[in-house]
Amino acid sequence: MKKVAVIMGSDSDLEVVEKAIKVLDELKIPKEVHVYSAHRTPEEAAEFALTARENGFGVIIAAAGMAAHLAGSIAANTTLPVIGIPIDAGPFDGIDALVSTVQMPTGIPVATVAIDGAANAALLAAEILAVSSKSLAEKLAERRLSDSKKVLEKNKKIEEKYNK
Amino acid sequence: MKKVAVIMGSDSDLEVVEKAIKVLDELKIPKEVHVYSAHRTPEEAAEFALTARENGFGVIIAAAGMAAHLAGSIAANTTLPVIGIPIDAGPFDGIDALVSTVQMPTGIPVATVAIDGAANAALLAAEILAVSSKSLAEKLAERRLSDSKKVLEKNKKIEEKYNK
Amino acid sequence: MKKVAVIMGSDSDLEVVEKAIKVLDELKIPKEVHVYSAHRTPEEAAEFALTARENGFGVIIAAAGMAAHLAGSIAANTTLPVIGIPIDAGPFDGIDALVSTVQMPTGIPVATVAIDGAANAALLAAEILAVSSKSLAEKLAERRLSDSKKVLEKNKKIEEKYNK
Amino acid sequence: MKKVAVIMGSDSDLEVVEKAIKVLDELKIPKEVHVYSAHRTPEEAAEFALTARENGFGVIIAAAGMAAHLAGSIAANTTLPVIGIPIDAGPFDGIDALVSTVQMPTGIPVATVAIDGAANAALLAAEILAVSSKSLAEKLAERRLSDSKKVLEKNKKIEEKYNK
Amino acid sequence: MKKVAVIMGSDSDLEVVEKAIKVLDELKIPKEVHVYSAHRTPEEAAEFALTARENGFGVIIAAAGMAAHLAGSIAANTTLPVIGIPIDAGPFDGIDALVSTVQMPTGIPVATVAIDGAANAALLAAEILAVSSKSLAEKLAERRLSDSKKVLEKNKKIEEKYNK
Amino acid sequence: MKKVAVIMGSDSDLEVVEKAIKVLDELKIPKEVHVYSAHRTPEEAAEFALTARENGFGVIIAAAGMAAHLAGSIAANTTLPVIGIPIDAGPFDGIDALVSTVQMPTGIPVATVAIDGAANAALLAAEILAVSSKSLAEKLAERRLSDSKKVLEKNKKIEEKYNK
Amino acid sequence: MKKVAVIMGSDSDLEVVEKAIKVLDELKIPKEVHVYSAHRTPEEAAEFALTARENGFGVIIAAAGMAAHLAGSIAANTTLPVIGIPIDAGPFDGIDALVSTVQMPTGIPVATVAIDGAANAALLAAEILAVSSKSLAEKLAERRLSDSKKVLEKNKKIEEKYNK
Amino acid sequence: MKKVAVIMGSDSDLEVVEKAIKVLDELKIPKEVHVYSAHRTPEEAAEFALTARENGFGVIIAAAGMAAHLAGSIAANTTLPVIGIPIDAGPFDGIDALVSTVQMPTGIPVATVAIDGAANAALLAAEILAVSSKSLAEKLAERRLSDSKKVLEKNKKIEEKYNK
Repeated sequence: MKKVAVIMGSDSDLEVVEKAIKVLDELKIPKEVHVYSAHRTPEEAAEFALTARENGFGVIIAAAGMAAHLAGSIAANTTLPVIGIPIDAGPFDGIDALVSTVQMPTGIPVATVAIDGAANAALLAAEILAVSSKSLAEKLAERRLSDSKKVLEKNKKIEEKYNK
Repeated sequence: MKKVAVIMGSDSDLEVVEKAIKVLDELKIPKEVHVYSAHRTPEEAAEFALTARENGFGVIIAAAGMAAHLAGSIAANTTLPVIGIPIDAGPFDGIDALVSTVQMPTGIPVATVAIDGAANAALLAAEILAVSSKSLAEKLAERRLSDSKKVLEKNKKIEEKYNK
Repeated sequence: MKKVAVIMGSDSDLEVVEKAIKVLDELKIPKEVHVYSAHRTPEEAAEFALTARENGFGVIIAAAGMAAHLAGSIAANTTLPVIGIPIDAGPFDGIDALVSTVQMPTGIPVATVAIDGAANAALLAAEILAVSSKSLAEKLAERRLSDSKKVLEKNKKIEEKYNK
Repeated sequence: MKKVAVIMGSDSDLEVVEKAIKVLDELKIPKEVHVYSAHRTPEEAAEFALTARENGFGVIIAAAGMAAHLAGSIAANTTLPVIGIPIDAGPFDGIDALVSTVQMPTGIPVATVAIDGAANAALLAAEILAVSSKSLAEKLAERRLSDSKKVLEKNKKIEEKYNK
Repeated sequence: MKKVAVIMGSDSDLEVVEKAIKVLDELKIPKEVHVYSAHRTPEEAAEFALTARENGFGVIIAAAGMAAHLAGSIAANTTLPVIGIPIDAGPFDGIDALVSTVQMPTGIPVATVAIDGAANAALLAAEILAVSSKSLAEKLAERRLSDSKKVLEKNKKIEEKYNK
Repeated sequence: MKKVAVIMGSDSDLEVVEKAIKVLDELKIPKEVHVYSAHRTPEEAAEFALTARENGFGVIIAAAGMAAHLAGSIAANTTLPVIGIPIDAGPFDGIDALVSTVQMPTGIPVATVAIDGAANAALLAAEILAVSSKSLAEKLAERRLSDSKKVLEKNKKIEEKYNK
Repeated sequence: MKKVAVIMGSDSDLEVVEKAIKVLDELKIPKEVHVYSAHRTPEEAAEFALTARENGFGVIIAAAGMAAHLAGSIAANTTLPVIGIPIDAGPFDGIDALVSTVQMPTGIPVATVAIDGAANAALLAAEILAVSSKSLAEKLAERRLSDSKKVLEKNKKIEEKYNK
Repeated sequence: MKKVAVIMGSDSDLEVVEKAIKVLDELKIPKEVHVYSAHRTPEEAAEFALTARENGFGVIIAAAGMAAHLAGSIAANTTLPVIGIPIDAGPFDGIDALVSTVQMPTGIPVATVAIDGAANAALLAAEILAVSSKSLAEKLAERRLSDSKKVLEKNKKIEEKYNK
């Protein structure tokens, strides 16, 4: 299976990004994690993106806060699908990162998830790889079923408490 | 190759959505176009999503405006990658559709592109299918190169005009 | 008297939703409380809405945060009045939930109350049932009077403190 | 059947409000239309609200723009359900009217619909009256079905055009 | 000298409002403080406004949060200058109160100060009364001078610390 | 009677500001109109403010767009009441001017009206002068009554049209 | 004198950018104009920035809309002062470009001007070069004086019209 | 070398501003620190700006919160480059200060950095002085290299932890 790259712009994003790593590990999807900054290490970030496909990656997840250029500048250097996680950092509560990530110009898409939506970024990466992997698609379907069951169990508890 | 579904919540979204259709046609990606509303035809929308994978789809693009629930309710019924296009409609200029599309809860990701970003939605769908299609990946790389050349040609004209 | 359904998208919304339950209980309005997610249990949520009228419900209250689709997807499956409570969750402080709940397309209204406005959601449900219940209308009028008196008592204390 | 009152804060709101009047007429719901301003005719607005229930009204719809106090000040003087339509007027594009209408304090709910959502305000009023009117409930169900069919017809046309 | 009325919509606003009371007391301006809610005690609020001029008031300060209608509904019932203090309450951080207070329709002005700007509301009231009171104008000029001196003293300390 | 000064930051604001001039003329309030920019003629703006009281002014109205500093910098140089009109100019639709005008620090109040609310600025100035002028207070009361009658006449027309 | 570079992300930005070019020409500041996109020609944009200082540039102006990464990615590759012009493009009216340009992380500043503030970007570039050029500083002072005179002439006309 | 002035509108801004002072000290750039308020000490602020160039300053940094006029009013009185730091203070989280600082009218630019972006303000000042100082330019280049190395070291640690 192709690998998923998880790039964060700063190691202060790690706490959020770990939710993505956890989901990838649970689904046994091979991954690599890196810290590259679009602004402080622009060359390394570009180099990573330019060689990602030939290095066996299928999807790149990029997380950054504030004027979040990381996902966009990765996407500018590859035609692999790039998933952007806007990080909630600073006084704009991540809304600056959301618009900096999602409002990309025609030609260079970034698949943007919710602010701090790292778990969903990993699930989206899995869904992308599952397009050509029946076994991964099955794992995802099971996970959905299990999420659904958890809600129904909570429903049962609430029903027992309030609807005598 | 797997098909891409393009679903719009209302036929008033067609003008924007046609930019996605055009890109898919240029890349010769098989597609189907539908109008299903999360609110006015919830059953049909759900049914489409539930059977999409077995019906040969690889990616679903969903476009909707205002309280844009379409992409989210498609995503709730499939584990295929779902791409959401927030449509600029009404007094919020599409910002309501953007947050309604992107701020999905954990477990159900929607890959959100820019407001009215239909061309990028199609390119993202292509990138997803290209993960397992070398020929499509090559087409995407060529398209990038061609976009890049167009910018450099414009640069040349501007340079000739201003930098004598 | 018809029953009021109180649906929350996640049991993490319970703390807010309990303010609605409390008001319904004070007014002795029959109620049922459930946890159904528009995204994780779309079928159960739709099923509940589709059968609500025949099951004796008069009003449905739905509470959800972020890309809050719950009220809208309940409303898509019933013509009972649906009241939406946008929940304050995540970095948008509930403003995402507000616009996701209120900006519904023509044909499918959601009666939206303030962010976290659970008590008002219950009062609105009571006002709706009181349209055809004189005794409930009287209870609501008394409650208003009592609220008004509380303000005037506070006014008295403040007057005594500051206006010698 | 109880009457629906449609109050607008200024006759410049009439163009939007007429969409509500049209829906009420289509559903043959008895109605009254008035212009009362919370700021320019506060007494008349309050008087109308105070006597609305005894005058045979079941629901009051109030439409206003900018610092939209009309729905709130009507609601302050009645325990009938009050539906607020925020009007898109001035540089805030109706977002000022939306928050002025929806962010009501505990005790005085306003059932808020989308900015300029007059048709939905009327449908919500109808849903409220239909709680105790089987025939109106049936009309609403038919209307939904008809809306749904229109979407599916549009879908058919789009399918014929794009999915040969 | 005419009196200043300080009205708050809820006694939970008192902590902010006390900054206004303090400034009025420092300037020895006669005042009255009240709790009247535009929504819970609409009649008392209107009555106060309607009789304020004949009762010896020169200016009315009104403080309220969320869908802050208090200043507007006071202003609707008097031609005395009304100063609105938007209170920071709830998830909008007072921005809902700001637009609900300032965006008044033509004919009914509200002199709006900053969110939680209670001290400035009192100073503005004093400036209004000082238009026809030389002695109050002098007090205000002295206060300005004193504020200015405080800044220059802080400047001196900072200069000594950093600019050796 | 004291004069009202109407200052605009740029003559491009004149179209809005003329609504203030018209109201002052209707009320026969003596006025002076000037163009002074906080940024392009800071000295003249400050000089005007510093001498305004001794030159017979009772109130200063200041109108400016974008980073609207004019009202604030006038207020910094006088203890006369200063009324700020945020002008709708540029891509922020006047919201930048609103927050630049209203969010003043403690000590220097600006009485802010709605975006482009020039007529209300003049009415507020009149209300301020009317605190010590019985005849002006009467004129304002008559104007209110006349505004109220206009609404009731419009109400009559609407009633005749819709409530047969 | 060092040169000023004016880079735009797309030739659709030219209309705004020409206001910068005009100011530079009026001040006889040597300049170069280019079209480089952070996303479509990332290599050329980086290359330009990396060699700008040795190629005789003193300041770089970068203009871009939407998720405006251009100024930031130029700044990531040079320690010359970089001035960012957020361009008003698309449904966010340039507010997306403003936050994408200004909210840069520590270490990589971008000197941001107003949305579409191209003339000011050029003036800021001139001010930067004037730090070490007395003659340019004098030109800037004259320009200010001339701007100031224009305001005072407009003031005179307005005074003649309104203050007889 | 020319000096950098660091002006804050209130000594409550010192905590943020100290990050600028620290960077200037690290780069051994001569500086002066002052507290001048655009509103409480307008004369001193203007006087400082008017004489700054002749007093040996090359750049002025101005920090202020809320309706942040300080940078703009400094810029109105000098043609030196002025850098504005919007301070996060009050319920708008510094967004009011950002728009008050950046949305300057044509003719009077303010080089705006991120909310609370004091370190970047100092770096920008250094970049401006480095246009004519080779040694300072070298220091800045080294600092960049060092920042870049720190990111790569963090990357190494993360790689070791996650990519076995």
